[in-house]
Amino acid sequence: MSRPPLTFAPHHSTLIAPYMPPSPSPSSHPRKPHTTLTFATSLDSNLALSPGTQTPLSGPLSKALTHYLRSRHTAILIGVGTAIADDPSLNCRIAGVALEHQPRPVVLDPHGRWPISATSSVVQLAREGQGRAPWIITCRELEAEKREVVESVGGQVFVVSPPPPPKFPLATPISWPHILALLSTHGITSLMIEGGGTVINTLLHPNNMALVDSVIVTIAPVWLGRGGVQVCPEARADEHGAKVPVSRLRDVQWVPLGEDVVLCGRPAGRG
Amino acid sequence: MSRPPLTFAPHHSTLIAPYMPPSPSPSSHPRKPHTTLTFATSLDSNLALSPGTQTPLSGPLSKALTHYLRSRHTAILIGVGTAIADDPSLNCRIAGVALEHQPRPVVLDPHGRWPISATSSVVQLAREGQGRAPWIITCRELEAEKREVVESVGGQVFVVSPPPPPKFPLATPISWPHILALLSTHGITSLMIEGGGTVINTLLHPNNMALVDSVIVTIAPVWLGRGGVQVCPEARADEHGAKVPVSRLRDVQWVPLGEDVVLCGRPAGRG
Repeated sequence: MSRPPLTFAPHHSTLIAPYMPPSPSPSSHPRKPHTTLTFATSLDSNLALSPGTQTPLSGPLSKALTHYLRSRHTAILIGVGTAIADDPSLNCRIAGVALEHQPRPVVLDPHGRWPISATSSVVQLAREGQGRAPWIITCRELEAEKREVVESVGGQVFVVSPPPPPKFPLATPISWPHILALLSTHGITSLMIEGGGTVINTLLHPNNMALVDSVIVTIAPVWLGRGGVQVCPEARADEHGAKVPVSRLRDVQWVPLGEDVVLCGRPAGRG
Repeated sequence: MSRPPLTFAPHHSTLIAPYMPPSPSPSSHPRKPHTTLTFATSLDSNLALSPGTQTPLSGPLSKALTHYLRSRHTAILIGVGTAIADDPSLNCRIAGVALEHQPRPVVLDPHGRWPISATSSVVQLAREGQGRAPWIITCRELEAEKREVVESVGGQVFVVSPPPPPKFPLATPISWPHILALLSTHGITSLMIEGGGTVINTLLHPNNMALVDSVIVTIAPVWLGRGGVQVCPEARADEHGAKVPVSRLRDVQWVPLGEDVVLCGRPAGRG
């Protein structure tokens, strides 16, 4: 489980500083965490070559960026598909980050599909004190063994009722406002959402995008081809039925990082 | 037909200089033109919201880049779908570019679908001396009126026989080596290929990508959503049947240009 620590250049952290969560003040109780949507794609907007697989896309500098971002957020959320495909560590490997500055891993698992066990990376890291214990947000009670594994390392399972069906198509039966409010109630002031495809595509819908504060996308100079896991949201139409762009970013900054580029921006719909 | 001239900043042209065609020497007779593949996409790799439509994607600086690139190539090639959807001008609107430095518009129209007429933009511009007359590469003889329109302004129609079926799937029945050799024979030393989706996706196949010298992609910070005209090539598998990335770029340079970014690179397979 021990992998080499990473470093992230100060001049790069200066460039992305405007997109980072503000320092939380102990007296403030925000309605929702500062939310950063971040992921890495190919030029053809693929996260991976095929569903259920992990494709190394970005270079070492971009990897260090991900871990720097993790150090700046109090929680990281991923969908269950990514949890199953990657068995991710979800901790921060920047040198010298103490446990109290490690982000809380949160897995969105509406149907309780994640086969979490004592050998899952997040569980092992929590046991070794190298990461926080995971939280699971689900719509159905987990099997007793799974709940036991989570709670044995200090994690939590949140069983939430699904809200009434939303007006727009959503791949997750739990609404994003609900998820963010829940996390805020439990002390999460800043949330980094890392994927996968389903989570990202639903968040790119303008109704959900309004909940996002910053977007950070790494793009690698490669085409993965058809049949991959693609970031491409549901199409959107205006009141006359004509197709219009789904979401746009403003306050855009492009930061070349080795062979990759990092795009920082804010949803254009926000004031 | 008169639109304002464009300017392109010298420091930007310095950045992309390494990717530009070399100055042709009168004694050299290359087997194929220096070939630049260039296009603009959204973050979800869409060229347009829907087939048959034109979606303004990139900002004014990126537009000036396109016209600068046109000034540096002896011909521009597009597929017939783009010719039909956009009725494009395909000339260079950089201030002070004389007719002899205008690129030759080439339309790849295997089945003779382009309804070229006296009112087509390229024909009007050629008549007004603001652009060169178009060439059409096709597999079947055009209707007499169409050929007459083309030839009335000094253009040419090249009827080529389709080659034997290639080993890999190709959307165009004319092979790329054949097209490039034909253009080279007719004095084209540098070719800019601008789209659309079919042309780009076939060129991204590694067998064809080996013919490309430079790739210049503009990316705008917007998601267009599903059902668009997407740059996403056919998937590729290795000798064991496992999916592998289709094409990769090397010598990569990312140039932020307003809200967009311009990616310059060379196909990774080339020596």
